[in-house]
Amino acid sequence: MKRFSLLQLAEKFGGEVAGDRDRQIEGVATLEAAGPGDLAFFTNSRYLEKARNSEAGAILVREGTELPGKTLLVVEDPSTTLAELLELFHPVELPEAGVSDDARVSDDVDIGAGVTIGPFAVIEAGCRIGDGARVGAGAFVGNGSQVGAGSVLMPGVVVYPGTVIGKACLIHSGVILGGDGFGFATRSGLHRKIPQVGRVVVEDQVEIGANSTVDRGALGDTRIGAGSKIDNLVMIAHGVTIGPSCLLAGQAGIAGSTRLGKGVTFAGQAGAAGHLTIGDGSVVAAKSAVFTDIPDGSFVAGVPAADHREWKKSVVVQKRLPEMRAELKRLARKIRQLEQDRNQED
Amino acid sequence: MKRFSLLQLAEKFGGEVAGDRDRQIEGVATLEAAGPGDLAFFTNSRYLEKARNSEAGAILVREGTELPGKTLLVVEDPSTTLAELLELFHPVELPEAGVSDDARVSDDVDIGAGVTIGPFAVIEAGCRIGDGARVGAGAFVGNGSQVGAGSVLMPGVVVYPGTVIGKACLIHSGVILGGDGFGFATRSGLHRKIPQVGRVVVEDQVEIGANSTVDRGALGDTRIGAGSKIDNLVMIAHGVTIGPSCLLAGQAGIAGSTRLGKGVTFAGQAGAAGHLTIGDGSVVAAKSAVFTDIPDGSFVAGVPAADHREWKKSVVVQKRLPEMRAELKRLARKIRQLEQDRNQED
Amino acid sequence: MKRFSLLQLAEKFGGEVAGDRDRQIEGVATLEAAGPGDLAFFTNSRYLEKARNSEAGAILVREGTELPGKTLLVVEDPSTTLAELLELFHPVELPEAGVSDDARVSDDVDIGAGVTIGPFAVIEAGCRIGDGARVGAGAFVGNGSQVGAGSVLMPGVVVYPGTVIGKACLIHSGVILGGDGFGFATRSGLHRKIPQVGRVVVEDQVEIGANSTVDRGALGDTRIGAGSKIDNLVMIAHGVTIGPSCLLAGQAGIAGSTRLGKGVTFAGQAGAAGHLTIGDGSVVAAKSAVFTDIPDGSFVAGVPAADHREWKKSVVVQKRLPEMRAELKRLARKIRQLEQDRNQED
Repeated sequence: MKRFSLLQLAEKFGGEVAGDRDRQIEGVATLEAAGPGDLAFFTNSRYLEKARNSEAGAILVREGTELPGKTLLVVEDPSTTLAELLELFHPVELPEAGVSDDARVSDDVDIGAGVTIGPFAVIEAGCRIGDGARVGAGAFVGNGSQVGAGSVLMPGVVVYPGTVIGKACLIHSGVILGGDGFGFATRSGLHRKIPQVGRVVVEDQVEIGANSTVDRGALGDTRIGAGSKIDNLVMIAHGVTIGPSCLLAGQAGIAGSTRLGKGVTFAGQAGAAGHLTIGDGSVVAAKSAVFTDIPDGSFVAGVPAADHREWKKSVVVQKRLPEMRAELKRLARKIRQLEQDRNQED
Repeated sequence: MKRFSLLQLAEKFGGEVAGDRDRQIEGVATLEAAGPGDLAFFTNSRYLEKARNSEAGAILVREGTELPGKTLLVVEDPSTTLAELLELFHPVELPEAGVSDDARVSDDVDIGAGVTIGPFAVIEAGCRIGDGARVGAGAFVGNGSQVGAGSVLMPGVVVYPGTVIGKACLIHSGVILGGDGFGFATRSGLHRKIPQVGRVVVEDQVEIGANSTVDRGALGDTRIGAGSKIDNLVMIAHGVTIGPSCLLAGQAGIAGSTRLGKGVTFAGQAGAAGHLTIGDGSVVAAKSAVFTDIPDGSFVAGVPAADHREWKKSVVVQKRLPEMRAELKRLARKIRQLEQDRNQED
Repeated sequence: MKRFSLLQLAEKFGGEVAGDRDRQIEGVATLEAAGPGDLAFFTNSRYLEKARNSEAGAILVREGTELPGKTLLVVEDPSTTLAELLELFHPVELPEAGVSDDARVSDDVDIGAGVTIGPFAVIEAGCRIGDGARVGAGAFVGNGSQVGAGSVLMPGVVVYPGTVIGKACLIHSGVILGGDGFGFATRSGLHRKIPQVGRVVVEDQVEIGANSTVDRGALGDTRIGAGSKIDNLVMIAHGVTIGPSCLLAGQAGIAGSTRLGKGVTFAGQAGAAGHLTIGDGSVVAAKSAVFTDIPDGSFVAGVPAADHREWKKSVVVQKRLPEMRAELKRLARKIRQLEQDRNQED
């Protein structure tokens, strides 16, 4: 078991201890579950009551947090420190490298050093699997695809032929990369398939959550930019470009050929129509749908998505609509009365 | 072939026959497909015409249903009786128990009596598979996971390490349990992964529909309460607690750390933001999104979700918005006229 | 490498060349990526700038398109011609037919001529696999199911027992056909499963995108009509009937027992409640939800979905709500003043 004093942790990760510096920490736990040997995490004021009642040995907080009577590890950026602490206390346990006898790997596959391939995985002809990459049980990597060094395909991932996955990516179970885009030529009511001959290119350090799908381009590539993180059940259509360092939360969907700039965020269940440009650093609120181009730094909400503040105002007024309608009727009555009075005067 | 008279069925399941008690019933079918040997089911008045035209030998209805000329099996709760009838006429055909030679089960797995494990399934080290459990073809159960007695993982289910599944659960194909939560520490625009070290705990008698995903907790557990039923393509994020006996319909999504009480219903494509508390017995209407805590017994709709009746009223008035705007202009004109008239009088 | 002059292509597919008829074409590429040997595609005016700057050898356009200085292949229906061109330049490379030694095919399965079954696929008892059908690696076909001639199940597809798939279908990876519908009898707050004993029937020439799910009927069938195309992550609930030649875009969802007519379109993230009838040729806009029956030829949008033009008008006015509310207050003030003046006169 790993054990560190709070002071050691503070020195390691650049923070200050408020309280007993010698307290011994053996793990990280939630405010509710933490005991005297655990460090807990508190940054969201919704959980103030839980923080006050926590039995954690110490609580990781940002500067300026008041929790009288508690021992605190105060850092500049608690989320980053939490990531570092978890890496310290929960190092990833790698399976022994090697190709399972039960995997079917085509003879001409180029396999790097220290690669792990699980049972019942299939790697077709012409693939390249980079150093230290891991392909989980039952995963499928189609003809001529590439998996970069250190990337991980969890069990059951399906990679269609010709897909390129960069380095240090993490692709969760059930993800389908490179399925056909939804492209048909409709004539006399019949839908004829337009062959989808582009690729999917996933750049380095991308994470894709369980059961998400990224379709191959119709002609060109569908591209996920470096360092972008995609949650579960997200749909990326053909020809989409996701810039670097984007965040797409659960069940978001991006329609065909839309381009997201750098550092764009889509919250849960949000969507974008096709052929749009979403500017750098834009944020699309949960459950919203973008139907027009939006400039850099936008924060939009609603269906169709509009400026977030406008949307908020409009939502507030919407609740008053029945009241407004009644008021409108009342005013119309009063005006009729005023008109009548005037006419009588004449 | 099984065959029962209506009277026998009435006695078995506690109902009354209206019409020929000796009619022989050999199966259950839809109103449209049913023939003279079939029992059909009618509770939704939308299908009255189909019930009237049905050639079913008898129709299962609740008390008070009028269907002149039809033979009826009248019960208190037709849905429950339908479930019982289907269990009677369509008993589950279990495959022969046993571990397929083509499954890869780690040596130290604790396998109960009467367990079935399909071809190309993988069960990693330290797992426990309870009595009578079934693990379908190509399913994956990661290190140290537990599958309770009588639970079924359909083909292709993926269970990440450390997951706990209770008794008598039914997990449909494509479900991913225990994938990483969507947690990143963002600094200077770069997203650093926060290791997700919690678990997924699925309590007894839970059903999870095809391709749904339940992420593991960041620190603590993600928990699905006993008897809860989850439909297809539903997303349960990290740290969520679903209470007992909840119903989450297709494509619903619950964001991180949100807690659903007992008996909560989310209709199709509904969502909840993170860190919320959804009170016992609450209902969230289809396509709605909850952005704030809601008390026990709420019935909410809209985005953001508000009281269902208020939402309905507001929807009705929304349709009249263009008309209201025109009226507003008309009134403004009249007032200008009235003011003008008054000023002329002065 | 295939190579054709523009004139040859024009004669093959029925078009006219504007410019150099002898230009040699060796492939199809996007406006941005195309070089002098490539044909590019231009129909969406958003990409006019890209078309003007394209280095493509020729551009495929519809009649009436103006692109001064560019060599054009002018056709009546560029999407259909694109499909034909891609079939010409990118013919599907079929794997060698045959059943992998690593597949597990039940002895009594009826396998047609030229069938391909990949490694780790499982085909259970009583199935029929039609001539030229292909079952990908790790796919599962449950007891008594049928896969029609020429149909393709990509790797990892799961077909529950008793499912019928027609001819020339393309079922993408991660699709689950025949999972249980979401049907429970709730009594005293407990949800009892209603056995789902119907089937899924997929008619000919249907395409279903990655990770979509189609549930089996409760009593009767869930049916996908001939020539319908379904995108990724779409949810089709139990007892739904999708008519022929429908298009359901990504993340759309159709609730139980709803019937779509012929040629219905659901755009991305749209939904329909249960037990509805959606008329032939109707279109449901992205992110919308249909809560009532809609007649043939409808074009609806919003939640709840209403006539598309009405929705557009209402959206425009919604943005003016805060302004309308202010105006309402202003008018009320003015009326009070008018009333006061009148009262003073009296």
